[in-house]
Amino acid sequence: MRKKTERGSESRLKIIPLGGLELIGMNITAFEYEDSIIVVDCGLAFPEEDMLGIDLVIPDITFLKDNIDKVKAFVITHGHEDHIGALPYVLNEINVPIYATKLTMGIIEHRLQEHNLMEKTKRKVMKFGDAMDCKHFRVEFIKTNHSIVDAAALAIHTPVGIIVHTGDFKVDYTPVFGDAIDLQRFAELGRKGVLALMCDSTNAERPGFTQSERTVGHTFDQIFEEHKDTRILIATFASNVDRVQQIINSAEKFGRKVVVEGRSMVNVIETATKLGCLRIPANALINIEQLKNYPDERTVIITTGSQGESMAALSRMAGDMHKKISIGPKDTVIFSSHPIPGNEKAVTNVINDLLRKGADVIFQDVHVSGHACQEEIKLLYTLLAPKFAIPVHGEYKHLIAQAKILKQLGIEKERIFILQSGDVLALSSEEATVSGRVPVGTVFVDGLGVGDVGNVVLRDRRLLSEDGILIVVAALDYMDNHIVSGPEIYSRGFVYVKEADALLDEARRLARDIIEKCEKKNISDWGKIKSIIIENLNEFIWKKTKRRPMIVPIFMEI
Amino acid sequence: MRKKTERGSESRLKIIPLGGLELIGMNITAFEYEDSIIVVDCGLAFPEEDMLGIDLVIPDITFLKDNIDKVKAFVITHGHEDHIGALPYVLNEINVPIYATKLTMGIIEHRLQEHNLMEKTKRKVMKFGDAMDCKHFRVEFIKTNHSIVDAAALAIHTPVGIIVHTGDFKVDYTPVFGDAIDLQRFAELGRKGVLALMCDSTNAERPGFTQSERTVGHTFDQIFEEHKDTRILIATFASNVDRVQQIINSAEKFGRKVVVEGRSMVNVIETATKLGCLRIPANALINIEQLKNYPDERTVIITTGSQGESMAALSRMAGDMHKKISIGPKDTVIFSSHPIPGNEKAVTNVINDLLRKGADVIFQDVHVSGHACQEEIKLLYTLLAPKFAIPVHGEYKHLIAQAKILKQLGIEKERIFILQSGDVLALSSEEATVSGRVPVGTVFVDGLGVGDVGNVVLRDRRLLSEDGILIVVAALDYMDNHIVSGPEIYSRGFVYVKEADALLDEARRLARDIIEKCEKKNISDWGKIKSIIIENLNEFIWKKTKRRPMIVPIFMEI
Repeated sequence: MRKKTERGSESRLKIIPLGGLELIGMNITAFEYEDSIIVVDCGLAFPEEDMLGIDLVIPDITFLKDNIDKVKAFVITHGHEDHIGALPYVLNEINVPIYATKLTMGIIEHRLQEHNLMEKTKRKVMKFGDAMDCKHFRVEFIKTNHSIVDAAALAIHTPVGIIVHTGDFKVDYTPVFGDAIDLQRFAELGRKGVLALMCDSTNAERPGFTQSERTVGHTFDQIFEEHKDTRILIATFASNVDRVQQIINSAEKFGRKVVVEGRSMVNVIETATKLGCLRIPANALINIEQLKNYPDERTVIITTGSQGESMAALSRMAGDMHKKISIGPKDTVIFSSHPIPGNEKAVTNVINDLLRKGADVIFQDVHVSGHACQEEIKLLYTLLAPKFAIPVHGEYKHLIAQAKILKQLGIEKERIFILQSGDVLALSSEEATVSGRVPVGTVFVDGLGVGDVGNVVLRDRRLLSEDGILIVVAALDYMDNHIVSGPEIYSRGFVYVKEADALLDEARRLARDIIEKCEKKNISDWGKIKSIIIENLNEFIWKKTKRRPMIVPIFMEI
Repeated sequence: MRKKTERGSESRLKIIPLGGLELIGMNITAFEYEDSIIVVDCGLAFPEEDMLGIDLVIPDITFLKDNIDKVKAFVITHGHEDHIGALPYVLNEINVPIYATKLTMGIIEHRLQEHNLMEKTKRKVMKFGDAMDCKHFRVEFIKTNHSIVDAAALAIHTPVGIIVHTGDFKVDYTPVFGDAIDLQRFAELGRKGVLALMCDSTNAERPGFTQSERTVGHTFDQIFEEHKDTRILIATFASNVDRVQQIINSAEKFGRKVVVEGRSMVNVIETATKLGCLRIPANALINIEQLKNYPDERTVIITTGSQGESMAALSRMAGDMHKKISIGPKDTVIFSSHPIPGNEKAVTNVINDLLRKGADVIFQDVHVSGHACQEEIKLLYTLLAPKFAIPVHGEYKHLIAQAKILKQLGIEKERIFILQSGDVLALSSEEATVSGRVPVGTVFVDGLGVGDVGNVVLRDRRLLSEDGILIVVAALDYMDNHIVSGPEIYSRGFVYVKEADALLDEARRLARDIIEKCEKKNISDWGKIKSIIIENLNEFIWKKTKRRPMIVPIFMEI
């Protein structure tokens, strides 16, 4: 879909979210002005429960491909998967430079290496206060706080005004690494005049102020103090470098050696250490093989698996499937995390397994969020005083919750835009209107396939997962379509075959009768015979079992 | 497994949980003394995420069938599915009388009617204070409070002492219907001497005291007051009669007519009204067809779907699939519930859909739990002062949480028994020991099939759901096993076939080469040829796609 002719002589800025507003994750937003487009973030989403067998979900970037000559850059706010994860896939089609802060770029580069994209891709590491210039756009990186180090908000200076995009953020006055969020710069921009604010909504339902990351450090100290006679295992998000730093600090204070376990955890710690975002005292870390040389009460294991992911290190330990670490009554296991919606049950299962092995498990109040609560959102709006508000990052209910806060701040409904992915919000220095739509959607990544699994395949997987499959095979004579062999019935995932002989026999006879009847009636359209078989077997099986396996008739020509 | 010879002359009481201690739900416990067994509760569980296509899970009752002559009665604590839901299946095999309070029996009878078991099954309605006598056992029904009316605790008087089983309970000093929990009776029993307490652990992780059901009524009044100009829809659990009563009360107070929507909601309200557990003013209810005769702000709709169940009334309204009610900006929708673990995402999806239609959605703090928190658990233990403690009802982590509370109360570890389903806890008047195991397990109900879907079928469904199926069909000559027709490749749920011609062609050629090679080598064992095809295709497909569809070779004899 192309833009209409604009009213008046002033060109409009177009803000076009290409994802991130329906599904959680998959954040990507295009900013278009005349012949230039910059793209903020390029994230992936993890599959919903009904996306069977899918590994990842990435945005449909048809709009960018249709405007490939305009696209100038990817500007990335921080290094979480829902903001960077689609880059390797998208860069294959749209290879433009990436701008990001140090740690963010370090994590991106790791992904690019995996996809052999390092040489091909231009990258520019940005400092806070730096700006990237690109014809109509100047994009300034501003320090924020989040559950990953080096997160940035963006002030996007455009011909129609300044757009501030917070990225994911919280206000932490006492951060573990680096400075507090640059509230002064936000205030300056606010004084100058901000056209629109795109603000993180994730915690907009929560009253108050998110606690400082540093409070978790105090909690660790307390737990270490109270569990001086056990080994300690701590599961947290691999990317939460500050959390890892605080575990290492407590370990040092209490004289424990640290083991890092889980591939993604090892990767992030390596990158963060190399870039100076993590300070590890000499001899603090030991190898997992060295664990046996230290008494339990002198060790800490930092591990992945805080979301109950079945293949992560902690889940494997809980399920007796970890080769090197087994859990017992001399272990204290800490979940320094909160279950992401949808993971509650998986996390609980791991907790139960750990408790059954006799471990002490601590899973409440050893975590703080990385997102701004209501008072922080109010603070940002008050400092920036934007003309227009565009709640972003969150499900629809979170966007609505932010809109409710804005109502309290006296921001009129007409100035608030709850967008859907694909909406084109056109802004002049005075006005904002949703002026059209561009194509958007989701692309499924399954194994090596990108986009080759769509709704047809998913529907089949869903059917197969419910009641399995019933295959009817017959060899028919090509000339007079009489049965040469079969029909035989094969099933998978439907009934326990050894105990369902009678049922499957009856189904076979039914199929044979149908084919023979069709012969007699001289029906030679195999497609039609197949339809009749499907219909009749469906009815028969439903009556007998109240199940609906997928029925697949296959005829071989002889 | 049979009991060993007892020490001393006194017979032992055996407490044998047959379910309910691993999975949430499926509560069923056998009490055996010499030649008598009584069974407390007979519940079902809802399938876990990995039990694909399964409708219900019921307990394996091999132990009861092996001892069928001993089994005297089912004694039911309350009418929730996880305490009564397996009765229709179990009664088919073990038909003994059921004892339960009035509403509990009313709900059970509804199930029996559906399964044509009413005539066959003896039933005895019990009042609080009543006791059923059966040789060695006298089982007394004691009033408690819970999120369903007529819930009972049981005092099981046995030759070795009194066992108190709380069922699911909370302490509500100001219940909506009927009396508060009979704390005096618990105190009396405590004075007399209680051998063991089996106490609800569901909320053992939560500090404090669960609020009275009546507080939700005040919240309803407040919401009705603040939303005088919209229609109000309230989703809650069908079985929570008190909650429905309070909605009807608020509706009456604010001059609104009430529509009841959702089959299970209609059923429970009918039963509860008939039994006098629900007081509906004349003309309070209207039919859904009459809705159009009243302005929106004069109506309330009570509906099912508070857990985001895809086929429930509210989910259908949110998804535009309800024939008679559509949601819009003039609606206030209240979730008077809390998501059961595992349902969080489904509930959120429904909330988002409702918000997108412009409805105001209230989903926080319009609910209280039906289970005792830590202070209530302490109260019960203090009144009953049992010699032994057996935490029940809850996942393992909840049982452990109750054990931690008991430690605070000074109950020694040796007096606390965290049992697993199948454990046999043998008690004399002085001692308790886990003395053996009986067979236990889960039986899957899928459509009409009870127990015909086991782990083999589930494993196939899981494989099929991940990457689909690849079927290789060939017609072979019986005599010299050369190919007469095929091989052909068919797939479902694997790739989008129209765009995977080349891949499937290559797979077909590979299969043909294998069969031809086997011919040349004179391999005539079809099973072996099939194995070779599976192995080679698996490898080929994995290399090309990183997927592992189920591969099913089918040979037709000609």
